[in-house]
Amino acid sequence: MAQDLVIGIDVGGQTTKCGIVDARGTVVEQTVIRTDIYETVEPFVAELAEALNRIIASAKAEGRIRGIGVGAPNGNYYTGCIESAPNLKWAHNRVEFAKLLSEQMNGIPVSLTNDANAAAVGEMTYGAARGMKNFIMITLGTGVGSGIVINGEVVYGHDGFAGELGHTCAVRHNGRQCGCGKHGCLEAYCSAIGVARTAREWLEMSDEPSELRSLDRITSKDVYDAAKDGDKMALKIFAFTGRILGEKLADFIEFSAPEAIVLFGGLARSKEFLTEPILEAMNANVLPLWRNKVKLIYSSLKESDAAILGASALAWEL
Amino acid sequence: MAQDLVIGIDVGGQTTKCGIVDARGTVVEQTVIRTDIYETVEPFVAELAEALNRIIASAKAEGRIRGIGVGAPNGNYYTGCIESAPNLKWAHNRVEFAKLLSEQMNGIPVSLTNDANAAAVGEMTYGAARGMKNFIMITLGTGVGSGIVINGEVVYGHDGFAGELGHTCAVRHNGRQCGCGKHGCLEAYCSAIGVARTAREWLEMSDEPSELRSLDRITSKDVYDAAKDGDKMALKIFAFTGRILGEKLADFIEFSAPEAIVLFGGLARSKEFLTEPILEAMNANVLPLWRNKVKLIYSSLKESDAAILGASALAWEL
Repeated sequence: MAQDLVIGIDVGGQTTKCGIVDARGTVVEQTVIRTDIYETVEPFVAELAEALNRIIASAKAEGRIRGIGVGAPNGNYYTGCIESAPNLKWAHNRVEFAKLLSEQMNGIPVSLTNDANAAAVGEMTYGAARGMKNFIMITLGTGVGSGIVINGEVVYGHDGFAGELGHTCAVRHNGRQCGCGKHGCLEAYCSAIGVARTAREWLEMSDEPSELRSLDRITSKDVYDAAKDGDKMALKIFAFTGRILGEKLADFIEFSAPEAIVLFGGLARSKEFLTEPILEAMNANVLPLWRNKVKLIYSSLKESDAAILGASALAWEL
Repeated sequence: MAQDLVIGIDVGGQTTKCGIVDARGTVVEQTVIRTDIYETVEPFVAELAEALNRIIASAKAEGRIRGIGVGAPNGNYYTGCIESAPNLKWAHNRVEFAKLLSEQMNGIPVSLTNDANAAAVGEMTYGAARGMKNFIMITLGTGVGSGIVINGEVVYGHDGFAGELGHTCAVRHNGRQCGCGKHGCLEAYCSAIGVARTAREWLEMSDEPSELRSLDRITSKDVYDAAKDGDKMALKIFAFTGRILGEKLADFIEFSAPEAIVLFGGLARSKEFLTEPILEAMNANVLPLWRNKVKLIYSSLKESDAAILGASALAWEL
């Protein structure tokens, strides 16, 4: 029987989504299991294999699975390992995830990379970057991730961990502490958490009126809702966030001269407030030869399918 | 007869060096012509072709030239053109350099790229980066250039102009104006000109004693000589220059996870004063996973041959 299907798995801190995907990028069957209730990797992989076999059976896909692609935090493409992932209890050390899963799945080959690289492959295979050979994907979620594509290939670097653009320096002096231990990282400003931090800082430092003042615990979604209502401080928070991101995008363009920057993730949904300040700062800070030439685009993948599609796209290359 | 030789040409603002190179990287014959006495490209290419034919004859290399590689400011690998090079009178507009030269040389194929990319290819073929598939070459000369190698290939990007790391932002606020028109570029601080600017600024802003005060027009070589004499201000200037470069190298590492950074060019000769501050800042600013892991190395090519070798290495790929 033709091996005309692949499986995509998105390992997240709380849940793991998996689905069977056909060559056109349709998710023909999917399911979700818990990630956070396992202390060690073996029972998690066993449960995952069971879930996969269930969806394979219900899609009548026995013998048709060409490969499995996995996107996971701190996933290393070269080794197939998840290494020191702070949000995965069972992967605080190095875990041979691809090998373990392949063994449980009767030898179906498994390819693994980090979630942002998987998203970039997904965007190139099925999404807004189809046909592009040079682009940079920035995932604006809880953190800031990135997947860099040069000559149609994801950049993994010497050790497999390339593309940590969220931890390049956005604010050199007096920068905020980032989760990674450094100060001033892009992620500390341009993630969902960063936007909420900006809101809390600014509320504390000024007495400017804002509907955000009435809230107990501010999230980036609250800032978005306030901006929608025309709240001035919320609008300024997005202008600030967009400017910082645009300034760094200029640096990234000078590195790899991409055709486009592709934005993805929860915070990218605030594009109505982010696009203008991003473009303004990006074009003001880039060399004249790239000014107003590099496209800023947003992921076109259906949000609910994107993570599975991204991971599954890896499997076609197996 | 076997095509066992290549030609390397380094087009500089004042002079153009060219040489015949064998597979072991020996420059078997070389010559130099003036670059700056031509108003248009045609007579320059005619003179260059004549010079090449002279060294081909004296090396008895007729029929043995496999290809010609050219390193030139603003050289574009994809198009073979030199585009808007401010320091080349005859290339203020777009000039089809590779095509013109190939025509003058009886159809010998010509490959062209910018000087920093040529240096990176040279380092990979004959120099300190031999065997490396992922490294970043930084040329510290009058300006700061860069050649980025990923998976054994120079990164040219979507348009052929990738690798302008000298124009990424080193100082965001109140940065010096750079020759490119932007402010705060790495090149404005970590080039030979940048070092001289730092000296002049610091002398003006303080009354700290320094042997540099007695000089009329300070160059980076003067700062080097003063540092050699133990001059405190000169030593601080190198510490400052190294720190700024190291901070930016951390960003570059987070982009492409190279095995090594290779430094090249006149200012790299001050390595005894630069290495420590570069490494300190680089390791302090990079994610823990790369701390003390990425090598900092210096070009091993003989200075007088390096430019020709770099350009010639391109020709082996033809």
